[in-house]
Amino acid sequence: MSKLWDKGYKLDETIERFEIGHDLAFDNELVEVDVYGSIAHAEMLNRIGILTDDELQTLKQGLGRILDLYRQGQFFMTPADEDIHTKIENFLVREYGDVGKKIHTARSRNDQVLVDLRLYAKAKILELESALLQCAESLVEFASKHEHVPMPGYTHMQRAMLSSVGTWAGAFAEALLDDLKLLETAYELNDQSPLGSAASYGVPLPIDRQYVADKLGFAKVQNNVLYAQNARGKFEALVVQAISQIMLDLSKLAQDILLFTTAEYGFFTISDSFVTGSSIMPQKKNLSMMELIRAKANMALGYQQQMMSVLSGLPSGYNKDYQETKKPFMEAIQLALDSLKVAELTISNLSPNKDKLLAACTPELFATDKAYELVQQGMPFRDAYRYVGTNLDKLEGADPEESLKKRTHIGASGNLGLSKLKESISASKVNVDKKYSHLMETWQNLLS
Amino acid sequence: MSKLWDKGYKLDETIERFEIGHDLAFDNELVEVDVYGSIAHAEMLNRIGILTDDELQTLKQGLGRILDLYRQGQFFMTPADEDIHTKIENFLVREYGDVGKKIHTARSRNDQVLVDLRLYAKAKILELESALLQCAESLVEFASKHEHVPMPGYTHMQRAMLSSVGTWAGAFAEALLDDLKLLETAYELNDQSPLGSAASYGVPLPIDRQYVADKLGFAKVQNNVLYAQNARGKFEALVVQAISQIMLDLSKLAQDILLFTTAEYGFFTISDSFVTGSSIMPQKKNLSMMELIRAKANMALGYQQQMMSVLSGLPSGYNKDYQETKKPFMEAIQLALDSLKVAELTISNLSPNKDKLLAACTPELFATDKAYELVQQGMPFRDAYRYVGTNLDKLEGADPEESLKKRTHIGASGNLGLSKLKESISASKVNVDKKYSHLMETWQNLLS
Amino acid sequence: MSKLWDKGYKLDETIERFEIGHDLAFDNELVEVDVYGSIAHAEMLNRIGILTDDELQTLKQGLGRILDLYRQGQFFMTPADEDIHTKIENFLVREYGDVGKKIHTARSRNDQVLVDLRLYAKAKILELESALLQCAESLVEFASKHEHVPMPGYTHMQRAMLSSVGTWAGAFAEALLDDLKLLETAYELNDQSPLGSAASYGVPLPIDRQYVADKLGFAKVQNNVLYAQNARGKFEALVVQAISQIMLDLSKLAQDILLFTTAEYGFFTISDSFVTGSSIMPQKKNLSMMELIRAKANMALGYQQQMMSVLSGLPSGYNKDYQETKKPFMEAIQLALDSLKVAELTISNLSPNKDKLLAACTPELFATDKAYELVQQGMPFRDAYRYVGTNLDKLEGADPEESLKKRTHIGASGNLGLSKLKESISASKVNVDKKYSHLMETWQNLLS
Amino acid sequence: MSKLWDKGYKLDETIERFEIGHDLAFDNELVEVDVYGSIAHAEMLNRIGILTDDELQTLKQGLGRILDLYRQGQFFMTPADEDIHTKIENFLVREYGDVGKKIHTARSRNDQVLVDLRLYAKAKILELESALLQCAESLVEFASKHEHVPMPGYTHMQRAMLSSVGTWAGAFAEALLDDLKLLETAYELNDQSPLGSAASYGVPLPIDRQYVADKLGFAKVQNNVLYAQNARGKFEALVVQAISQIMLDLSKLAQDILLFTTAEYGFFTISDSFVTGSSIMPQKKNLSMMELIRAKANMALGYQQQMMSVLSGLPSGYNKDYQETKKPFMEAIQLALDSLKVAELTISNLSPNKDKLLAACTPELFATDKAYELVQQGMPFRDAYRYVGTNLDKLEGADPEESLKKRTHIGASGNLGLSKLKESISASKVNVDKKYSHLMETWQNLLS
Repeated sequence: MSKLWDKGYKLDETIERFEIGHDLAFDNELVEVDVYGSIAHAEMLNRIGILTDDELQTLKQGLGRILDLYRQGQFFMTPADEDIHTKIENFLVREYGDVGKKIHTARSRNDQVLVDLRLYAKAKILELESALLQCAESLVEFASKHEHVPMPGYTHMQRAMLSSVGTWAGAFAEALLDDLKLLETAYELNDQSPLGSAASYGVPLPIDRQYVADKLGFAKVQNNVLYAQNARGKFEALVVQAISQIMLDLSKLAQDILLFTTAEYGFFTISDSFVTGSSIMPQKKNLSMMELIRAKANMALGYQQQMMSVLSGLPSGYNKDYQETKKPFMEAIQLALDSLKVAELTISNLSPNKDKLLAACTPELFATDKAYELVQQGMPFRDAYRYVGTNLDKLEGADPEESLKKRTHIGASGNLGLSKLKESISASKVNVDKKYSHLMETWQNLLS
Repeated sequence: MSKLWDKGYKLDETIERFEIGHDLAFDNELVEVDVYGSIAHAEMLNRIGILTDDELQTLKQGLGRILDLYRQGQFFMTPADEDIHTKIENFLVREYGDVGKKIHTARSRNDQVLVDLRLYAKAKILELESALLQCAESLVEFASKHEHVPMPGYTHMQRAMLSSVGTWAGAFAEALLDDLKLLETAYELNDQSPLGSAASYGVPLPIDRQYVADKLGFAKVQNNVLYAQNARGKFEALVVQAISQIMLDLSKLAQDILLFTTAEYGFFTISDSFVTGSSIMPQKKNLSMMELIRAKANMALGYQQQMMSVLSGLPSGYNKDYQETKKPFMEAIQLALDSLKVAELTISNLSPNKDKLLAACTPELFATDKAYELVQQGMPFRDAYRYVGTNLDKLEGADPEESLKKRTHIGASGNLGLSKLKESISASKVNVDKKYSHLMETWQNLLS
Repeated sequence: MSKLWDKGYKLDETIERFEIGHDLAFDNELVEVDVYGSIAHAEMLNRIGILTDDELQTLKQGLGRILDLYRQGQFFMTPADEDIHTKIENFLVREYGDVGKKIHTARSRNDQVLVDLRLYAKAKILELESALLQCAESLVEFASKHEHVPMPGYTHMQRAMLSSVGTWAGAFAEALLDDLKLLETAYELNDQSPLGSAASYGVPLPIDRQYVADKLGFAKVQNNVLYAQNARGKFEALVVQAISQIMLDLSKLAQDILLFTTAEYGFFTISDSFVTGSSIMPQKKNLSMMELIRAKANMALGYQQQMMSVLSGLPSGYNKDYQETKKPFMEAIQLALDSLKVAELTISNLSPNKDKLLAACTPELFATDKAYELVQQGMPFRDAYRYVGTNLDKLEGADPEESLKKRTHIGASGNLGLSKLKESISASKVNVDKKYSHLMETWQNLLS
Repeated sequence: MSKLWDKGYKLDETIERFEIGHDLAFDNELVEVDVYGSIAHAEMLNRIGILTDDELQTLKQGLGRILDLYRQGQFFMTPADEDIHTKIENFLVREYGDVGKKIHTARSRNDQVLVDLRLYAKAKILELESALLQCAESLVEFASKHEHVPMPGYTHMQRAMLSSVGTWAGAFAEALLDDLKLLETAYELNDQSPLGSAASYGVPLPIDRQYVADKLGFAKVQNNVLYAQNARGKFEALVVQAISQIMLDLSKLAQDILLFTTAEYGFFTISDSFVTGSSIMPQKKNLSMMELIRAKANMALGYQQQMMSVLSGLPSGYNKDYQETKKPFMEAIQLALDSLKVAELTISNLSPNKDKLLAACTPELFATDKAYELVQQGMPFRDAYRYVGTNLDKLEGADPEESLKKRTHIGASGNLGLSKLKESISASKVNVDKKYSHLMETWQNLLS
């Protein structure tokens, strides 16, 4: 397969393998968006007179065929192809002759991979938002169902004060909703069209960057051509930074669930279909997927570190180093999509063991309540605190459910605001679905 | 100095040193915001009847005195103090008696440090935004001044196509403006009041969380009490994530300047007051501060990694591990403030060497232009590319300044949009200044 | 395909995919060592009377068949298999009946994967050592060939003092030889047999751990059974830590070569077969593989971070989190093997441009030499330094080749010790080859 | 205070602060070793005829005075000093005139800081080894004291098989002994003298590098002068890599102790002097130092990442970026020394609660034992496993202490090899003490 920049000499084979590496699999993921980017570019070339109407139609037909072949599993990268952009151009030249040699006018592969990654990022961010909202919804449902079930609240891994299952689950739902904002910011920055930056320095041709941006559904053109290229990796890293925050929230959820399902705590049970066994110990029921989420949070942080440190110290303009950011970028996205789904399924299959939870609400949880009683009788708090602290053996418990309902200030167990949370999630779901449909329609329109 | 939770037994001294550690210096940074948080809390306790009007006035007076002493350098953490919150309570008890023992009613130190860090983050984010805008402004000024000075554009560190000093500097200004959005998102999330979450589980007292949030100038109350505590480290990490992106942009700027000021490139010169010497080589003029920015970008990524991996795998509720996030958080902020200032100063003291830049605009830079000429004569691009590639020795240069001006599409050297950029920076500066003044006024009002 | 721990209930399919994940490809890499570990274990079970001689022979035959099938590409993991250990046991049961059900006596899969990873690590470390020595050899050859070719020595990326191509290349050869020691330490720790640790707590059977360790060629038994399991990830991370150091050395080499092959420096040229082109610029010759090595060093650091942070905070005993360490471990090894090969090829195809190098040896490089001349005439160094510093315009150059030879102290350009370096490399190569052959023979013997 | 390279122009003050930064505190740590390096260098200059005997004596006297002043707290870095090397030279010039201007002959500050860091590393590595051995000793003592106390062994955080307190503690002692080897390798590489590398390119003077290496107690000269400088950061990173492994082992220890001291497990109790309280909850006893060790392990990994990513992509020769590696290097060492001490103290103050441990040894822990009984009656293991798995309700417990003693294979609970472990620790302690005394004597001799 000939290379776009082939001018005769041979690339050493070891080097070739080194250069393409993992990119193969990741490039396959980009076929679809590369086709959309190419059609929009061709439309623009037609508009400025570089392609005739016939040529444009031929190219659109060819690109449409590539998409069909790809969807049938018949168009994919092999080690013989340098990259997906080259493969597509080669296909067009072979099948349609000279017109295929024209499609790369006024753009470079750097340009192309930039636009591909932005389109890919936009679609994937919306998928992440959708998965995040599903997971948040399952948490709020769990919180509502068991809202007033008492459980000990912990600090320093030690029993601290009275809390509730509703408080516990609601906390995670709210965490995810904050993470949604991070995804939205990542979306906003990725929603800038780089097309026309070429090899970082624009082209001496009167291209219409706004037109192509509109065709592809970008909110705006990314102005400075060099910045467009300098942003390679940066905008992708933003997605991974948001993912890292999501994964840290899921990591906490996973650690809690792992603790609460031990023999020692026994607070929660999960359906048997969610546990794995041991090859040596007949009795084992392991919650492996929670352990994996806990580990994958660290993997995500590693992806974040990899992507960003590859960028560190690079001079302006395209550098081949950028290629290495593709792998952690795409792997981080898949990891987060899977983890959100697994977390959602886990929550949906989790049940609190009310008896064990009640039994764990031992009198020490009420030590602070006792101090506040003394405060309300006029004792300064610090004296009340010391009094209770030196009379711990006299502490008495209280009815946990009653106590929970008395905590009525904003965000406390008796006033969790779950229905507002539900509404907020529903509204966000509608919004994300709308954005996603609109994006898909815009791309679909390019094919017609 | 007695400890808030002192109930008689002795903490081993080694352990004590281990636990306080670096926190000393970082806690000193929080005195001011801790005082504001305490006043707002006291106002609320008065509102719900736990403090009388007199008690409130006494506490406000005491807290005002602490602030004065702090500003005179007479109130600071020593190893004998456990933390700043304890030191302040102890001062109030010692000086004002029982009323000092009441201020901690309905809050915990976890609560307090959360509110301190949010207030601190808000002020520091605005300072970062201001420093970022100053730096962006100096870049746009540099770009405007040398807008059409030609320079080679590089890819793969090899000469690629014609570019301009204006394009180069403009790219960085735009990068910083995108980073501004990340700081704004970090601000938005930090702008939620955690007060009232207590030790993660709220309190059985009718506290008014909205009131205290308003007093402190928060945009909203962070609802779920457990989430407020679970967000410890997370919201600070968001600031460091934004800083990491800023530092990566400055790292690229630094690497470019280091290359462009070598004997080999010679494109830029910097004033002598910005270079350092060697102890052994009499002739050396080193651009150390650009090397330091390049290194500090990696330090920032390390801070990001530290903060986030400390959070990974922690169960719900306060964990002492969080204390370790303070250091990378505060160090990252200082690092970024300094780096933005140094970058701004460097740009303001940089001059292009027009002769060297012109001399470097060798004919190969025009190879692509030549190919496009052939395209405009009707040759398919890929054929034109191959034709030029096999006739490189026949390439002729062109007048670089003329060529630059011909690149008129959006964001290219002849159409950089610098004046729009300037306007955007000015508008943002006004906006940031306004937010900062408003924040300072709100806090000032607490003292009166 | 039935699971070893199958007791009736169904694992949700999403979860199943989540749990196996990338492991598929990595598990395929372990088939060979898993077979060796299983044979040694079976020999031991026979020795302690759990398997009859006939049963042992049957199992060895079956395991031999698996190895043959694997080598013919007919035995590999599919998503239906839980892991490679299960797949092998299932094969033995299906093909040989009850005896297949006996092989897992006195071991667990945790045990097995530990032994697999140790055997894999040992072989791969030796391959790394061999690749490292090849690369060091090519550096010493390059250094010898161009030993006295002058080149400017840089500090702070600025011309500093006179140096030589021999000094430059020799520095990297010595760096790699130091890295060899890190690989040797990683080997030593991995050379401990974990077999017999079972699920971390040993077994109530009189197994002979020393016998099985000897059979597999381990230097010793890893004593404490819980430590054997707790070391999962730790010993693999050691390999990645050594790799990280190697990659940092190669990163420096790559950055130097990228600078020295720019138009601006022009010190080195590389054969055309080692450069790649641009899809838009006909003239470009990019040294992509050096950019990739520079990027891959950061990837390696990321793998180090991933592996180690997954381990952080895990309690004792096997945790599923460990599974995630397999991917960065194996990817880091492949990355380093490839990078060493590419670096070796690059060095072998590099030529210094003597004219350009000489031209760059400008008078300022001799400023310190001049100061030392004054010192030898009795002027205190700091005065001589200041005198030269204020008379830089009067500096004269000197004959660089002559000057180089005058630097005769240990390790200076006139006394680089290259022949000793060569001898050391040759001796190490013999040693590594011997260890590798011995290891392969030991494993081969298990099959007979 | 004048700067060594001062030639008239002024360094902008902001820049100056940026450049020195944290280095101040870290440079103070190097005064002592800098004095030793300077004396050895002066002795060598005398030997090769650059300093007279009188001059040497004057310099030694001056350097001795600096050491005295330093020890009395009267010689330390201030922001006005550029670095410690400059400060010392300035002192000598001011106090002793021309001879002070001679000491920098044939060396550079890069050279000096390299030798300082190597000497510092050597001393600190030995201190780390000593602290590590103390900690290992306390673990073995704990293991011996409670050797046969039964405890559940966990996998996946679920009860798995019978284990013992001796097994648990012994595992950590062995882990630390393996880490000792990593420190030893780090020591070996740091035990190479860089002196004479000057600004990376040696000097045109007949210096005697072997002599100075011997004087300072280095095992060898680091040969290639450029490699000596290129190794900056690399050798320090090796220490931090070893520390990272130590901290991961302590992190596991900490997580175990945190779990085992919860109300839910209740396996271990720690003396009251090791717990901290809460400001709001009177009853709380928190094991903060274990949480801090858990967090500090992540800090250590961050330091490792910082140091190594600063090195990534730097060209040959000294770069100012290296300065940033000093902070993570020194902070990581302090962190590890403190953590080892805290871990040792914690173990020494920990007691198992035998009743709770016994109660937790529930019948399921014996499921595998039951399967092995069936195996010994001739049932194939997998069938025995399935039989027990489907009859879990019929499982009976066994006497745990009896069962533990029956596990007699190498490294199992009945054969932990604790006395061999003790001997190995004692031997290592003697060895480390000897090396440390020898190092201190060598340095002391320089002063006489």
